[in-house]
Amino acid sequence: MQTLYVGRIYTLADGDVAGPVEALLTEGSRVRAAGARAALEPALRPGDRVVDLGGATLIPGFVDAHVHLVPHGFRLTDVDLSGAQSLAEAVRRIAARHARLAPGQALRGGGWSAAGWERPPTRHDLDAVCPGRPVALFSRDLHTIWVNSYTLERAGITRDTPDPPGGRIERDPGGEPTGLLRDGAIPPVLAALPARAPAELEEALAAAVRDALAGGVTAVADMAADIAVDDVAAFRAMQSLARRGELPLRVVKYVPEAALDRLAAAGVESGLGDDRLRLGGVKLFADGSLGSATAWMLADYADRPGYRGVPVHTPEELDDRVRRAVAAGLNLAIHAIGDAANRAVLDALARHRQASKARGLLHRIEHAQHLDPADVARFGALGVVASVQPAHLPGDRDLALRHLGPERARTSFALASLRRAGALLALGSDAPVVPLRPLQGIHAAVYRRLPGEDRAWFPEEALTPLEALLAATLWAARACGIGDRAGSLAPGKLADLTVLSRDVLSGREEDIVEAEVLATVVGGRLVHGDLASRPV
Amino acid sequence: MQTLYVGRIYTLADGDVAGPVEALLTEGSRVRAAGARAALEPALRPGDRVVDLGGATLIPGFVDAHVHLVPHGFRLTDVDLSGAQSLAEAVRRIAARHARLAPGQALRGGGWSAAGWERPPTRHDLDAVCPGRPVALFSRDLHTIWVNSYTLERAGITRDTPDPPGGRIERDPGGEPTGLLRDGAIPPVLAALPARAPAELEEALAAAVRDALAGGVTAVADMAADIAVDDVAAFRAMQSLARRGELPLRVVKYVPEAALDRLAAAGVESGLGDDRLRLGGVKLFADGSLGSATAWMLADYADRPGYRGVPVHTPEELDDRVRRAVAAGLNLAIHAIGDAANRAVLDALARHRQASKARGLLHRIEHAQHLDPADVARFGALGVVASVQPAHLPGDRDLALRHLGPERARTSFALASLRRAGALLALGSDAPVVPLRPLQGIHAAVYRRLPGEDRAWFPEEALTPLEALLAATLWAARACGIGDRAGSLAPGKLADLTVLSRDVLSGREEDIVEAEVLATVVGGRLVHGDLASRPV
Repeated sequence: MQTLYVGRIYTLADGDVAGPVEALLTEGSRVRAAGARAALEPALRPGDRVVDLGGATLIPGFVDAHVHLVPHGFRLTDVDLSGAQSLAEAVRRIAARHARLAPGQALRGGGWSAAGWERPPTRHDLDAVCPGRPVALFSRDLHTIWVNSYTLERAGITRDTPDPPGGRIERDPGGEPTGLLRDGAIPPVLAALPARAPAELEEALAAAVRDALAGGVTAVADMAADIAVDDVAAFRAMQSLARRGELPLRVVKYVPEAALDRLAAAGVESGLGDDRLRLGGVKLFADGSLGSATAWMLADYADRPGYRGVPVHTPEELDDRVRRAVAAGLNLAIHAIGDAANRAVLDALARHRQASKARGLLHRIEHAQHLDPADVARFGALGVVASVQPAHLPGDRDLALRHLGPERARTSFALASLRRAGALLALGSDAPVVPLRPLQGIHAAVYRRLPGEDRAWFPEEALTPLEALLAATLWAARACGIGDRAGSLAPGKLADLTVLSRDVLSGREEDIVEAEVLATVVGGRLVHGDLASRPV
Repeated sequence: MQTLYVGRIYTLADGDVAGPVEALLTEGSRVRAAGARAALEPALRPGDRVVDLGGATLIPGFVDAHVHLVPHGFRLTDVDLSGAQSLAEAVRRIAARHARLAPGQALRGGGWSAAGWERPPTRHDLDAVCPGRPVALFSRDLHTIWVNSYTLERAGITRDTPDPPGGRIERDPGGEPTGLLRDGAIPPVLAALPARAPAELEEALAAAVRDALAGGVTAVADMAADIAVDDVAAFRAMQSLARRGELPLRVVKYVPEAALDRLAAAGVESGLGDDRLRLGGVKLFADGSLGSATAWMLADYADRPGYRGVPVHTPEELDDRVRRAVAAGLNLAIHAIGDAANRAVLDALARHRQASKARGLLHRIEHAQHLDPADVARFGALGVVASVQPAHLPGDRDLALRHLGPERARTSFALASLRRAGALLALGSDAPVVPLRPLQGIHAAVYRRLPGEDRAWFPEEALTPLEALLAATLWAARACGIGDRAGSLAPGKLADLTVLSRDVLSGREEDIVEAEVLATVVGGRLVHGDLASRPV
């Protein structure tokens, strides 16, 4: 069956990049043609459908080049206590979640703050609604967990347990643990929780997928789970959903460093998979983060003389990892926040550039957040993807000024410079750290401030709306190794598209800020929202 | 574009299994419909094509459930000296091959016999046409290799080298090695050859793929390379061709036991891949072979009292491997020739049946050649595939009589009994051990003798032609995990089909023996032979 979409359509295909076309014809899972309505209508046959977009705008589906799907899913499926105005309200939410869980399954979640509550919560509050179940509920600042008596018992914590180093077990006047555990007292309790069952991971994954589709995203690169989630189990959950035909989102999977030698020894190379789930490559870390002051810098932190952050690998180790990955036919996605980390990674990738090219590999630097000016041009020259998350900018700009000072902060999120120097730029959200909403990243990339703020942060590094849209679709698809089949609406490519309520290329800020995702289509199939169609 | 095939068509789809239909309509890579010509013709549109089969017969493409692609390819690409009637003729073939090789690449091959030659060959014959190149040419009986002076030098073999244990270095009257090495003298020389380069593996793979297509095969299960070929390199060659769009055959890859823990630790499960190349599972060995008298039997070999063959694994080890594979979401294909090996494997699979079912796994026994009558019914009951290679029957029947005696040989290649007991039977060739020609296996399964012979071997175990054809198409596809999309020509399935010159279901033996493959189509694309078509 064919579908003819009529309205304002940005295909982003060669020749049509600059402006909209009037009509798009898809056939089954593929794009057949785009152009003038009158030119495409003769190809329609009985049984085909026509979608009149009205005032809406159709674009290629967003490709989010950097997400953590299963951790994002847990944010959605675990109990959310944020905004609970009273202890009673929090307990109500917990009881509702408890009722939905299988026996023995842990009740996890967080987001609570007792600031406005009548008293701090205790284990007794939880014992009343979810006794006999492992529970762990993080406070909003992540420095405290709230548990029930059963969980304390499982972890072996009694009135006689001393406070662990760097932690505190809160106790009532009689000396009994209250159920609140702080900092260093948290990890032993988490370790005593039962592991997430495969069904839990699949439920979380499905929730994350639904959320991505609701954001107009049709493909993602999954950047391996964080330490709190077993990434092998997350990958298995993806394969389970894909086998069952329950993965409407396209996923390109990057696996953790531990998998590098395993894949190499088994002969599994980047690209194995299909248009639903595919092995992208291996994720490495070169340094930490700016928020924790572990980004690895070339010069001292401005606020901490003599300190330059924490490299995860020596240059020799990075070189070794790159060499092994290239020999094994595996693309790398290497986390590098600080300018020293970025330089070390570029150095390592440069040494293996010829071998990488010969094997058709495409490596990426994830974040590429703070760059020495001398390194900006190396991304383009070396063919290394700059995989950036502009939605971090509003949160990180003050940190950058504090840790780097105004001069070195100038090449933070250096999007325009990277682009001018020929880098392949790919936009990602880094969900769950920020929402899985590409329009938020596009706004940050174009305006370099929050909506409603006055002053942009180094506005000379802003992308144009068209550049930002390309970086969130076609360029991101290329960065994920699927640019030959996704990312633009060229004939023969997959019919992955998103319908927005606003024209995000109008040049008006409010059209980006207020754009809503009306419909998401993956492989010709409507997977989110509504699309009124009529027969030919 | 649609294609309408008209003629004698066996779809083997539900409802049409028994008899032919008149027409088949494909659209792009898929089957759209099958039935009466008059019912399908109205669906044709301008630009579509019609193929009139004339007297030919169209069937679903053969699925060969057990091949070794790269080793098979080497049989085709290495120099073939079989049938060389003179030393000069052999040297001519060697010189021709030499001219096509890159500098430093080893010249390998075999099949020569000096029986009718004027004298045994020597290194000097090779030095004259391929000096300075590593060479190793096996005799037809595989007990001798013929090499040049350069190869002797690389292996460090001189007049002073003593004969190794169980081997002989042939020497001339002056005591110099002649270039012929026998038995135990062979392995050190082979070990000194350069490894096969990736390009050599890809060339061999491409040759094997072309040969499979020429045999009407559209999909195979690759059962891991033999010890002479690095299977990891073979798997990489498959991925290279698939990435380049140069793999017209569908391949379901089984990897060696060494990969089990690697895949498990990386979280890669059976099924990852696409309709071109997909991970099938892990190949294990439970015993050896009948030819080498290492098949593991329940009772003594008839010709060797007190001897029962060689198990590769203890029952505890088998149980451990099955448990680990099931936990990792990996299908197993377990080589078992002798009745003791088959029982041990069935016992191990039985213990993990529930877990396998829960994970949707399908395990196979490869060969299932000699069965205790008590075990025949267990294949069906346990849902274990019997992956059989009937083309081995003519070669193995005398061995079976000698090693097992006439009574125990009765349940060798017990195809009809397995089928009656509900086993999923899958036919394979085991190429390169026998030719990659499914019709040869179908003939052996139906007639249980060679063409032209008088007496069938235990004819009560013969399959009907329809059963044999199903076992070589739909059932084999199911055994490979692709029965939902290949193996029959049901609407929505892949348009994988083969056109034969004869009606192999006519019931006439000559229609199987003399059937030629006129055309092979994979995913709607002609990949072998010719198909005359005309516009609508």
